[in-house]
Amino acid sequence: MFSVAQIAHFLQADVIGDGNLQITHIAPLTSAEEGAISFCANTKSLPHLRKCNASAILVSTSEQDLVLNSAIVVDNPYLAFAQISKWFDWRAKLIAGIVDASKVAISAKVASTAQLCHGAVVGNNSSIGEHCYIGPNVVIADYCIIEANTRIEAGVVLYQDVKIGENCHIHSNAVIGADGFGFAKKAVGWQKICQLGGVRIGRDVEIGASTTIDRGALSDTIIGDGVKLDNQIQIGHNAKIGDYSAVAASTAIAGSTNIGENCTIAGMCAIAGHLDIVAGTHITGMSMVSNSIKKAGVYSSGTATEEHHSWKRNVVRFRSLDAIAKRIKVLEREVKALSLEENKGKV
Amino acid sequence: MFSVAQIAHFLQADVIGDGNLQITHIAPLTSAEEGAISFCANTKSLPHLRKCNASAILVSTSEQDLVLNSAIVVDNPYLAFAQISKWFDWRAKLIAGIVDASKVAISAKVASTAQLCHGAVVGNNSSIGEHCYIGPNVVIADYCIIEANTRIEAGVVLYQDVKIGENCHIHSNAVIGADGFGFAKKAVGWQKICQLGGVRIGRDVEIGASTTIDRGALSDTIIGDGVKLDNQIQIGHNAKIGDYSAVAASTAIAGSTNIGENCTIAGMCAIAGHLDIVAGTHITGMSMVSNSIKKAGVYSSGTATEEHHSWKRNVVRFRSLDAIAKRIKVLEREVKALSLEENKGKV
Amino acid sequence: MFSVAQIAHFLQADVIGDGNLQITHIAPLTSAEEGAISFCANTKSLPHLRKCNASAILVSTSEQDLVLNSAIVVDNPYLAFAQISKWFDWRAKLIAGIVDASKVAISAKVASTAQLCHGAVVGNNSSIGEHCYIGPNVVIADYCIIEANTRIEAGVVLYQDVKIGENCHIHSNAVIGADGFGFAKKAVGWQKICQLGGVRIGRDVEIGASTTIDRGALSDTIIGDGVKLDNQIQIGHNAKIGDYSAVAASTAIAGSTNIGENCTIAGMCAIAGHLDIVAGTHITGMSMVSNSIKKAGVYSSGTATEEHHSWKRNVVRFRSLDAIAKRIKVLEREVKALSLEENKGKV
Repeated sequence: MFSVAQIAHFLQADVIGDGNLQITHIAPLTSAEEGAISFCANTKSLPHLRKCNASAILVSTSEQDLVLNSAIVVDNPYLAFAQISKWFDWRAKLIAGIVDASKVAISAKVASTAQLCHGAVVGNNSSIGEHCYIGPNVVIADYCIIEANTRIEAGVVLYQDVKIGENCHIHSNAVIGADGFGFAKKAVGWQKICQLGGVRIGRDVEIGASTTIDRGALSDTIIGDGVKLDNQIQIGHNAKIGDYSAVAASTAIAGSTNIGENCTIAGMCAIAGHLDIVAGTHITGMSMVSNSIKKAGVYSSGTATEEHHSWKRNVVRFRSLDAIAKRIKVLEREVKALSLEENKGKV
Repeated sequence: MFSVAQIAHFLQADVIGDGNLQITHIAPLTSAEEGAISFCANTKSLPHLRKCNASAILVSTSEQDLVLNSAIVVDNPYLAFAQISKWFDWRAKLIAGIVDASKVAISAKVASTAQLCHGAVVGNNSSIGEHCYIGPNVVIADYCIIEANTRIEAGVVLYQDVKIGENCHIHSNAVIGADGFGFAKKAVGWQKICQLGGVRIGRDVEIGASTTIDRGALSDTIIGDGVKLDNQIQIGHNAKIGDYSAVAASTAIAGSTNIGENCTIAGMCAIAGHLDIVAGTHITGMSMVSNSIKKAGVYSSGTATEEHHSWKRNVVRFRSLDAIAKRIKVLEREVKALSLEENKGKV
Repeated sequence: MFSVAQIAHFLQADVIGDGNLQITHIAPLTSAEEGAISFCANTKSLPHLRKCNASAILVSTSEQDLVLNSAIVVDNPYLAFAQISKWFDWRAKLIAGIVDASKVAISAKVASTAQLCHGAVVGNNSSIGEHCYIGPNVVIADYCIIEANTRIEAGVVLYQDVKIGENCHIHSNAVIGADGFGFAKKAVGWQKICQLGGVRIGRDVEIGASTTIDRGALSDTIIGDGVKLDNQIQIGHNAKIGDYSAVAASTAIAGSTNIGENCTIAGMCAIAGHLDIVAGTHITGMSMVSNSIKKAGVYSSGTATEEHHSWKRNVVRFRSLDAIAKRIKVLEREVKALSLEENKGKV
């Protein structure tokens, strides 16, 4: 429980109304009642703001007069909400120690302030930093380094030679460092290329559940500082994701592709291998990127959902789009010729 | 081993032929031999039906005379097949009890009829209902409730505050309750929004292998009764899937989207966030849904596979589709003008 | 450490230069220094080749004179690189034995040369062949057969009745044999079809991290010899993948589809169910395949990424593509009529 004034103090913000009101939880504008703090992040929410009974609401200056109870006035209410959300985290706190049923190699180092849960495995020459959380049944192979304050949730697997910076959060069943998909064509079938590189992950990185990041073939796969990866993402070997870029769920980035800094890539995109995507690029959902992008901006591909029967007709026409374009060219030529004739006739 | 009559009795159906024939297994029409029961679900299968040596075949009235041995006459042979398929399940039955190598928190409750396998973990204040199966290396965090007769296969992870109704089946390595992908933009990088909601899953729900369902940000992510989710699906935070809707593999549904009841969504679809999809909507494979759907029906997007070289030409033309449409408009105007001139000339 | 001559001998290749140079590692042309072996796989790399200080470089005859130090002359430098890559694998070697914290059913058979790691589970009547590696927390259910020299990485789950041939490599958190997505429509909701088939996987198969392969409904799902599957792939029940076919990450292949031999399917493709894809078919990334392919060749679908604002305009036009095509037909008729009139006028 916090007072409105305490929260405002943390945010270095002004309070309009009663700073002594007590806050027990966060809630959206539409359902917040007494004891809750809420936030108004956009003008669409104004009708809800006027009726909201929350004890306090994070608002920008222009909305402060619409608040029924206390207002905390900030530049960016959504960011302020994000900043205080952690105050209301009720989840279990770290309990330092190594439980009996985990297995730590003799040559591994685990900080005394770290927590290792039931069934966790730490391999030879690996090290776990201060205040790390290693969840149940996590497997960390040999020669891995996990820096301080990093949280690895249940079921994650790190292959050998994976380094993870401070303050990262890796969600359940993610796999980091599995072999890249590298094979050379033989007369019959495929010759495996042994994947000898590792994975380097910066600090403040979040990696979603069931996301897979392959180890490099010869050099490393690299994830920059502050990168945010959602669930079910695939990152191929030797890819590089620049600092502060964010990738939404189910996107696949193929091998050796280089994503610049501060990019955002929406969900279910497919980005081919060996491309360069310049810093500040934004790619909308389900786009297929098969060429490098050299100019920052917003990019898209695909078609929009429509009623199935009309779609079927349009799809058939797509297959003759080139022919359609050629027919237009012919028509343009013919119409021009006819116009000339017509004009000639006039003169 | 069951007699044809026993099966017919269960299905409340009539037998044509010998009800005493013994059935040992189910097989498709194309390979069924003596001892098998088979089914004829559509007219395409009629040629196989005429030659099938199965001891009994599930058929509708119109096909009953084509069966060589015994026929069990039902309204919907495919549904009848589904209903009896469980009779032939040879898989290991539940063995109640908690094995030594699992770990159950002191404050957790596990029904005496439930089975907990090797390496399973049950956290504080969680409860496991009667006749539940908790597979090897399953991790169930704190404050989870698993209701009776639910089966959770090896390697599944439930984060804290996940509730699962009766008679559900969660397949291996699914992750339920990982953090939603919520970040607010900062001057540099991203501020994490602590994900404080939970996940609520109804009864009779099936969740496929490696499917991920994120916890809500403030309120819960909700999966209705009788929902069927295939493998590799991603469900974002605060999404809601209505009762009896079914989603095929590798589809991603972004945060706060509301899918109505009795929808079917085919594989590899990408459904954007904050949308409403009305009950009774059917979406075909690999569709990109970026707007709400307000009228029940069948919807699609995308283009159809074609030979690569012609596709390349068509794709190039797609980028000038708007220009093409404008050129047509110009042509139409010009041709109209020419026709008027022509007609004027005539008069 | 190997001499250049040793490597050349293994590859049955000639050495140009000093065969006694010692090689400690492999590196790409762009960063290779003394002690490294490198390779030149395409003409794009020629500028790097001329400047590369590697002690030895794998080249084809035409490039042998460009090498600064020793050259090993081979037909296919990329394949030669793949063949020797395993020599430089520094990862931990197999340590035969069963650790205490694993659990092997009494009726299971584990070869004495196999390694079972911490938390691994082997079910009733299953068998693990010679020199197999079963990683930490792997779960192998009942009636599975793993043949010799197969490596199953941490966290993999095999359901009952999965057979895997010799010399396979299954990456972490893959799930093989989960229930196929089979339900019959009921008056309200869905009736589950018990999935009674198994999975059969050939020899020399690689299966990527988090890939899921469902068990068959009545008969088996089949993966041929030498098949290579990348990460995050979904294979539906009763699908069949022909020998030596390779599938890149995040692709989904629906149930009962039959992929022929020697196909390549790029990443993020969606292949519908009950199709036949003929041997020697190549499908480019993010293609939607909804019809069988009967002629070997290269196939594609989708549209290419473009700047968002122009894309939006083109997407709108796609919805009237059929109408556009019809308007062109009308225009063609009108222009033809006008031309005839014009010509009439001339005569």
